[in-house]
Amino acid sequence: MDFKITFLGTSGTVPTPERNTSSIFVQFGGEKLLFDCGEGTQRQMMIAKTGFSISSVFITHMHTDHFIGLFGLIESMSLNGREKPLHIYCPEPDFLRKLFREFGYDNLDFRIVVTGLKDSDVVRFGNFSVVAFKTDHIVSSVGYAVIEDSFLRFSPEKAKELGIPPGPLYKKLANGETVFFRGKMVSPEMVTDGMVRGRKIVYTGDTKPTEKLVEISKDADLLIHDSSFTSELSEWAEYTKHSTALKAAEVAKEAGVRRLILTHISARYSKNTEPLLLEARRVFPNVEIARDFMEVELKRNQS
Amino acid sequence: MDFKITFLGTSGTVPTPERNTSSIFVQFGGEKLLFDCGEGTQRQMMIAKTGFSISSVFITHMHTDHFIGLFGLIESMSLNGREKPLHIYCPEPDFLRKLFREFGYDNLDFRIVVTGLKDSDVVRFGNFSVVAFKTDHIVSSVGYAVIEDSFLRFSPEKAKELGIPPGPLYKKLANGETVFFRGKMVSPEMVTDGMVRGRKIVYTGDTKPTEKLVEISKDADLLIHDSSFTSELSEWAEYTKHSTALKAAEVAKEAGVRRLILTHISARYSKNTEPLLLEARRVFPNVEIARDFMEVELKRNQS
Repeated sequence: MDFKITFLGTSGTVPTPERNTSSIFVQFGGEKLLFDCGEGTQRQMMIAKTGFSISSVFITHMHTDHFIGLFGLIESMSLNGREKPLHIYCPEPDFLRKLFREFGYDNLDFRIVVTGLKDSDVVRFGNFSVVAFKTDHIVSSVGYAVIEDSFLRFSPEKAKELGIPPGPLYKKLANGETVFFRGKMVSPEMVTDGMVRGRKIVYTGDTKPTEKLVEISKDADLLIHDSSFTSELSEWAEYTKHSTALKAAEVAKEAGVRRLILTHISARYSKNTEPLLLEARRVFPNVEIARDFMEVELKRNQS
Repeated sequence: MDFKITFLGTSGTVPTPERNTSSIFVQFGGEKLLFDCGEGTQRQMMIAKTGFSISSVFITHMHTDHFIGLFGLIESMSLNGREKPLHIYCPEPDFLRKLFREFGYDNLDFRIVVTGLKDSDVVRFGNFSVVAFKTDHIVSSVGYAVIEDSFLRFSPEKAKELGIPPGPLYKKLANGETVFFRGKMVSPEMVTDGMVRGRKIVYTGDTKPTEKLVEISKDADLLIHDSSFTSELSEWAEYTKHSTALKAAEVAKEAGVRRLILTHISARYSKNTEPLLLEARRVFPNVEIARDFMEVELKRNQS
């Protein structure tokens, strides 16, 4: 199953001509999710051709550059004739519910279900979970870890023992599908030699680095980290409870993640992100700077 | 004095990759105004390089695609260290005041002054007025006429009689400036042969055509008119209380305006506006379709 991430907005608090405010689109199999929804997100979705058929939006905190895009998105969904409920998860549900009432969203043709999440709350989907974890920003805030369930590892040796010839059937079995061969059903459980760890991506939202963040990011396939400033502004980062590129890289290193993408880029680096990249790379080499419309695919783990 | 109009958003209710939601920037001399402020307006302002030093925002009605951009704009103004008050005029001030309180805008470093406007209310600026007029949309709504004061017409004959040679001094006198010539002060009143009508632009916001609209648009230099649909959708336009291109052209013709610009273009015509243009042109030839970032300059009237 594909795990595709599209960065819709990568700016800090203030957008720039190059970068829109925070939003990340995640597609996992048939499930489409949005993480944060800053101003202008619906238009970014149109340009990126993600479609509007998302089931759930996860908001990290109630700052305008992370949630005000919900209003336009909801109204466009309504005009498009949406009927399926839209689930919105956030750390301060009463605030959002109150605003939605003010805007008359109790009378739309689809239901909006606002659910509060706090540290360690889990939202289950087909074969993965979204886990909220407490972060440390200037308002109540959480980050999110998207964690695929572990699955059975395909053993070509065992498949061969059953007489199945290498080829397309192997690929299906490796992807967890049941196949038919010479009238016999072969399920993945019959050709396995153990469990494989599911994929894990972690999105911090706005936060200074925390122990909890290192813990939940342990061995993540991808860490998407607040990197508002370089270390030159480390005091300002501390005061505003954001991360520097260096601190983000230290989290990535300590947690042993495979890949780090820096986002929430302050306007001062919007065009030239070299200073952020250079200081992060010194500590953690496999690092990139997010750009609007950048797409990332995570292949299924094999071990 | 220059009168410059920059279209920041020209889409209908739903934005498209080509068109952002409603907003028009108007600069008249040193005064910078915004008319409507849909989602993403602050970023459009950055791209158009209008700057953020606007004194006043005029909202036509409280639909999200016309005002939700205020939140991001206000917060960016705050982060940029704004100190001057921001005046916001709209037909439903209590709704906006309540939202601003929810968002904590009572504690910014600059004051936000929300003022309700109804039919015939006038806001005065240096040498022009913004006049609100009642429109007919599905919620409480107004349009706005920006009307320059009449001024004295420059008479080259009278200037010649005073011995002033044709050239740069004539231009200054024609622009209403006092000049000095051979030690003598010459004011515009000394070289005039009557009054000249000031410029007038009318912006409808979302509305079906009304008598009031024709009346206030009388002899306007520019009419910016809701043109959501073609006549094929005239019933839908009637139901949703919007205008067709044809109806907008009929208003322009009846009011005898000089120039008509159609905006609030439904997503179905976002890329190909020919159908709108063709039906409007049959009735009123001097018509254009607004595009995002289109700039229009209106020179001073000479008669």
